Amino acid sequence: MPPDLTAVRNYLLSLQDSICSGLEQIDGQGRFQEDAWTRPEGGGGRSRVMSEGAVFEKAGVGFSHVSGSTLPPSATASRPELAGKPFHALGVSLVIHPRNPYVPTSHMNVRFFLAGNPEPAGPSTPVWWFGGGFDLTPYYGFEEDAVHWHRTAQAATGEHYPHFKKWCDDYFYLKHRSEPRGIGGVFFDDFNAPGFPASFDLMRSVGDAFLPAYLPIVGRRKGLAHGQRERDFQLYRRGRYVEFNLVWDRGTHFGLQSGGRTESILMSLPPLVAWRYDWKPEPGSPEARLHDVFLKPREWVQG
Amino acid sequence: MPPDLTAVRNYLLSLQDSICSGLEQIDGQGRFQEDAWTRPEGGGGRSRVMSEGAVFEKAGVGFSHVSGSTLPPSATASRPELAGKPFHALGVSLVIHPRNPYVPTSHMNVRFFLAGNPEPAGPSTPVWWFGGGFDLTPYYGFEEDAVHWHRTAQAATGEHYPHFKKWCDDYFYLKHRSEPRGIGGVFFDDFNAPGFPASFDLMRSVGDAFLPAYLPIVGRRKGLAHGQRERDFQLYRRGRYVEFNLVWDRGTHFGLQSGGRTESILMSLPPLVAWRYDWKPEPGSPEARLHDVFLKPREWVQG
Repeated sequence: MPPDLTAVRNYLLSLQDSICSGLEQIDGQGRFQEDAWTRPEGGGGRSRVMSEGAVFEKAGVGFSHVSGSTLPPSATASRPELAGKPFHALGVSLVIHPRNPYVPTSHMNVRFFLAGNPEPAGPSTPVWWFGGGFDLTPYYGFEEDAVHWHRTAQAATGEHYPHFKKWCDDYFYLKHRSEPRGIGGVFFDDFNAPGFPASFDLMRSVGDAFLPAYLPIVGRRKGLAHGQRERDFQLYRRGRYVEFNLVWDRGTHFGLQSGGRTESILMSLPPLVAWRYDWKPEPGSPEARLHDVFLKPREWVQG
Repeated sequence: MPPDLTAVRNYLLSLQDSICSGLEQIDGQGRFQEDAWTRPEGGGGRSRVMSEGAVFEKAGVGFSHVSGSTLPPSATASRPELAGKPFHALGVSLVIHPRNPYVPTSHMNVRFFLAGNPEPAGPSTPVWWFGGGFDLTPYYGFEEDAVHWHRTAQAATGEHYPHFKKWCDDYFYLKHRSEPRGIGGVFFDDFNAPGFPASFDLMRSVGDAFLPAYLPIVGRRKGLAHGQRERDFQLYRRGRYVEFNLVWDRGTHFGLQSGGRTESILMSLPPLVAWRYDWKPEPGSPEARLHDVFLKPREWVQG
C-alpha cells in the first residue's frame, strides 16, 4: 500500500485541533492565537500559541507541512540517494510551559517524511518514514506522575515501548551537563518496517496518547501552592530546556538551517528564563531531589 | 623568534585582573567572585563572575589555559596536519550584561593557540596563531557610543581595522533572524603573518583597548532613567544573545564539545531572558529604531 500523504495531513491537522482544544479547556482562560504562514520554497503551516493563560504561561502547538522540489543537503547527509529529490515533511510539534512550577513542561512531536515520487505508478519507489514521541520535564518530581506518563506511553507504543523509551532517554540528554532533560517518555524515528498502514497507526497512537498522558498530571498539580523559591527554581531549570533545544536538538537545527520559520521553530522556548552561574541546590532539598531521584534513566513501569 | 607561551599567559592573567578591577570600580558595589578550576585532560582556568552589581547585573570574565597531549578532532577539521599533536589554547573571554537597558551588553575575547613542539630546537616547527576582538550589543542605540566604540577599535587595530570590522560583522550574525547581533567592532583569528612579536602586540592592543572602549559608554548611560518598557525590551533582546551563543558561536560549541567547563562557557548567558512569540516593536518606536538604524552593517568611522 503506497503512503497516503493526504490521510497523514488530515490526521495531523485534526490532532492539532484536538490538542489545542483540550489545553484551552483545562486552562479555562487562555486561548490559542493562530498564525498561518507559507514558505517561499513550498509548503507552510499554522502556528498556534497561547500566552499568559491561567495554567499555561506559554504553549505552542504547531502544524507544518514543508515541501520542495529538491531536498537540502543537510537532510540527506545519511541518505545521499535522496539528494535532489522532491520531498514532503509534515508534523505536529508542541511545547508547553506551565505557570505553576509543580506542573511539568511537556513536549510532543509526530511527523511524517516522504521523498521521491509518491505515485505508485511512478518511475521510482518513494522513501518515507514516521517519527515522533513525547517527553516530560518536571521541576519538582512526583513518582505518581512519572508512572502515569510512562504507562500511557507504554500503552500507546506496545511492544516498541522498551526500545522507544531508551531512544527517548538517549536523545533528550544534555551531554554538556551529563544530565537528562527530564523523565523521558518515548521517541522514535525512521519508522516504516511494518508497512504504511501499521506505521501510520503507531504515529496516531502516539499523537492520540498525548492529552491522556499529560492532562491528568496538569489537573493534579495546577492548584498546588508555591512561592518565589519554586518560581526561581523553575526559571533556572528552564535554562536547561533552552540549552537542549538550541545546542542539541536536531529538529531545531534542521529547521533553522533549512530556512524554516524562525518564530515557529523557536516558539518552544520558555517565556522567561534565568541563568545563575554555578548554582547548585542544597543537598537534601526538594530542588536537589529532582536531580537525585528523577533525572536518572529509570524504569518507571514494568515491561 | 619562537612563540613565548609564558609571556602570553602572563599578559592574559594581568588583563583579566585589570578588566575586573576596572569594572568593579565603575560598578561601585559588585565584586567578582573567582572559581579556579582544573581540567582532567590538562590545564585549567579562573572564572570570575560579578552577580547583582549596581551597574552590572551579571559580568563574567574568564581566563583559561587548556592544554593536552593530543588535539581533539573537532579542533583540526580544517588543519588535519595538527591531529594528535600536543597543544595549548589560552584566552581571556568576557561578557557583560548591564542592568540599565541603556547600557549595551559587550563581549571581548583574546586568545592564543599553539600546537606542536614549542622548543625552537625541537623536531617540528610549532604552529600558532592569535585571535580576538570585541563587539557591542546595544538595546537602545546611541550614535555617539557607536562612533566611540569603533574609533577605539580602529585605533587598536590600525591598518587591519577595515578587514577585522567586516570579519566581526560577518561573524556576529544571526542567520536564522537575518540580523546582526549588535553594532559589531573587530574580530580576527588565525593571525600570525607578521611573526610572533608583532602578532602578540596586536592581541595586546585589542585586549588593552577594551576598557577604554566600553567604560565611557557605561559612564554616560548607567544613570539614565528607565521603566518596565525598557526592561522588557532588554529581556526580549537578550534572547537574541542566547540564540547566537548557543546556535552559532563556534567557541561555545568547541568548548561544550571538547569537555570544557560548562559553567565557565555558559557564564556568558544573561541572568534573565524573555522570549515572546512573534513580537515586533511598533514602527517608529525607540525599540524599532534599534533594528532600523543600528542593526545594519554600517561604517561608523572613516577608514
